[in-house]
Amino acid sequence: MQFDLMIQNGTILTVNSRFDILQNGLIGVRNGKIEKITSLGKNEAPPPAKKVVDAGGGIIMPGLVNTHTHLPMTLFRGLADDLPLSEWLNDHIFPAEAAHITPESVRWGTRLACAEMLLSGTTTCCDGYFVEGEVAKAVVASGMRAVAGQGVIDFPAPGVPDPAENISTATDFVRQQMGQSDRITPSVFCHSPYTCSPETLRKAKRAADKLGVLFQIHLAETQTEYQQIQSEHGVSPVKYLDGLGLLDRNTLLVHAVWADAEDIKIISERGAKISHNPESNMKLASGVAPVPKFLAAGITVGLGTDGCASNNNLDLFQEMDTAAKLHKVHLADPTVMDAETVVRMATIEGAKAIGLDHLIGSIEIGKEADIIILDTAKPHLTPMYAPASHLVYAASGADVRHVIVGGRVVVKARELMTMDLKEVMAEVIAIAETIQNKNPGI
Amino acid sequence: MQFDLMIQNGTILTVNSRFDILQNGLIGVRNGKIEKITSLGKNEAPPPAKKVVDAGGGIIMPGLVNTHTHLPMTLFRGLADDLPLSEWLNDHIFPAEAAHITPESVRWGTRLACAEMLLSGTTTCCDGYFVEGEVAKAVVASGMRAVAGQGVIDFPAPGVPDPAENISTATDFVRQQMGQSDRITPSVFCHSPYTCSPETLRKAKRAADKLGVLFQIHLAETQTEYQQIQSEHGVSPVKYLDGLGLLDRNTLLVHAVWADAEDIKIISERGAKISHNPESNMKLASGVAPVPKFLAAGITVGLGTDGCASNNNLDLFQEMDTAAKLHKVHLADPTVMDAETVVRMATIEGAKAIGLDHLIGSIEIGKEADIIILDTAKPHLTPMYAPASHLVYAASGADVRHVIVGGRVVVKARELMTMDLKEVMAEVIAIAETIQNKNPGI
Ligand SMILES: [Zn+2]
Ligand SMILES: [Zn+2]
Repeated sequence: MQFDLMIQNGTILTVNSRFDILQNGLIGVRNGKIEKITSLGKNEAPPPAKKVVDAGGGIIMPGLVNTHTHLPMTLFRGLADDLPLSEWLNDHIFPAEAAHITPESVRWGTRLACAEMLLSGTTTCCDGYFVEGEVAKAVVASGMRAVAGQGVIDFPAPGVPDPAENISTATDFVRQQMGQSDRITPSVFCHSPYTCSPETLRKAKRAADKLGVLFQIHLAETQTEYQQIQSEHGVSPVKYLDGLGLLDRNTLLVHAVWADAEDIKIISERGAKISHNPESNMKLASGVAPVPKFLAAGITVGLGTDGCASNNNLDLFQEMDTAAKLHKVHLADPTVMDAETVVRMATIEGAKAIGLDHLIGSIEIGKEADIIILDTAKPHLTPMYAPASHLVYAASGADVRHVIVGGRVVVKARELMTMDLKEVMAEVIAIAETIQNKNPGI
Repeated sequence: MQFDLMIQNGTILTVNSRFDILQNGLIGVRNGKIEKITSLGKNEAPPPAKKVVDAGGGIIMPGLVNTHTHLPMTLFRGLADDLPLSEWLNDHIFPAEAAHITPESVRWGTRLACAEMLLSGTTTCCDGYFVEGEVAKAVVASGMRAVAGQGVIDFPAPGVPDPAENISTATDFVRQQMGQSDRITPSVFCHSPYTCSPETLRKAKRAADKLGVLFQIHLAETQTEYQQIQSEHGVSPVKYLDGLGLLDRNTLLVHAVWADAEDIKIISERGAKISHNPESNMKLASGVAPVPKFLAAGITVGLGTDGCASNNNLDLFQEMDTAAKLHKVHLADPTVMDAETVVRMATIEGAKAIGLDHLIGSIEIGKEADIIILDTAKPHLTPMYAPASHLVYAASGADVRHVIVGGRVVVKARELMTMDLKEVMAEVIAIAETIQNKNPGI
């Protein structure tokens, strides 16, 4: 029986447990899943298929997994930079969100984010925002895959004017999404321990557990947060959450910059996962998360870009590069965060972090065909001694040529097949003009 | 009289002293130089020109200046990563250089580097290597501009088997280059204080002074170097060079990672310049140069990528992003290294650092027409509240669409007009196969 889709003529980085690399690789896809992975002999003809994607001698690898995003925040990309954190947040980002986040703007911002992610090789993201139903719809229409988390916060938020309804809104969102699309996995996204009361945190986690979904939370991002929790509760942010019973295998801790040896032990013992967002942490001057220590403690760590207001792009290739280099210089050790480790963090480890490693994150038989192909016939990727090195240290998202999600070609020769990109950009520009006019200082 | 070339329909970032930004900008070029810079009114027709480059609504800015490269090292891109510094250098890079650097390989490696730089918006670089005559030739043929420094080191080197001839070789090189091409400025590149004797250092600087050219030197890159100089000479690397009379306005100090307050005062007083290479310093775990302190002391700092063995690409846009973010997190201050400062470092300040600011580095009347145009109609550059922010935090070299050097269009719609890129890549791949076969461990 014919394959629905065949990907051929490239070097396959499987990112399986042995990190197998197959020269002249071939992948057969049926019903959206990977059915065959092989290396073709020199004169061997490929088997028949309904559709063929020629990798042109490039790199074939799993689609990247971005473990932390706030998709609609593409609307605020570059709105305010280089400012003290509180001024940035309180005078720019929060007012812009309050004034400009509507179901309509969320839709366009998310579409733009999905376009950017797909065109830079990310096939799955783990999002947390408000009006998340609109996010989920836009993600589905884009052809991407996502964990979509409805935000919970003890303040009035877009779509949740009364904070008393924050958890019921999140619960309703999760229930509505279940069974809707096999590319959306709903989740509860608790904003942070400094914007939610202990009661809210506990209830939100209980709700997530009852629904059987991932519980995401920003944690220990800044030293200010660390000191605040320490002074209010007498313990570190990690211990505070642990005391509330929030840390387990279905919890994703975002940032975890300020975590000491005891905190790391607790996270490891509970099996909680971490989303590491080095570019955001650097740009906001939050600090350097102890990622090599997390890894040594056996903690699952995925990579994330964070929202576009604090990065300012969603290119996970650049995030890999930064992650590899930041920890080397921070620890004065050029051997930490080697290329293979970082490629795993951006793929299979990210999938584990968000609970989707049974479906995605590597090229293995039975998994979803979420596959990207990089064009390596470019000066900055020549010569190529080791593919993983290039992915981390030389490539960028612009090198991604084809993108396949669940067996469907969503980017073909850098053209996005699932939306009218010009329309999306024009709509976002129109929204941005409104934002800029209301913020004449920028 | 008609312009030879007109660039129109874009936002001009002049990077002049006022950082003027012109909407609907127009640049008229004659005899390779900028003769007119203006903002066109809404219904105003552009003046006539022999040739027009339409910026398509994108960003028009000065070509980037990469203040530190070893161009032929593209041959070793990704050959060895994630290793302890001495193992990386002694077991991989030095043996590869000894075995594989020939005039022929230098030519191909440099061509590849120029292709990569032009395609990512760099129009001028400051290079230091051996067989530099071949480097200069390849640069000229590529259409780029460069300061080309012949290497001086107290070891046998490619093209200089007898170290006793290191300075005379450099002197000969400079004399030969003078008057050859107005796009090559010769220079003397002393490798470092730990690979050259005090006599060599002094003589090399004297030779550079006599010839009236830039003296480049790696300095205070690693803590090991700092400690070695300190123990051998009793002073810091900066003070050691100063004691030898090496620091003045025509000296470019590369790296300067390990510089204390006294060192900074000395560098500032002497008027020496600095090339900051954050990605290389991070990847090799060398440390974080005190760049905000250099700037506060009035020292001129340009950006550099270093060679491809330690970065591993030559994309100065990514270097800008890293530079902006690294110092923020290192100093726990999100306001340092703001976007405008970093754009200046990659353009006019870089030009100052290598002594070419009278010719290049900004879009101003009378300067060489070294101009790049970015296509901003892309998801990751949408919306655009502030162009400088996007250049630093969101763009990459792949967003460069057209490149002009001295009024000549060398990249047109991402196509390199000055060489057969496929041939260059094929030749480098063939050389890399030889390298890989002799290093079966990689
Ligand atoms: Zn976040
Ligand atoms: Zn160097």
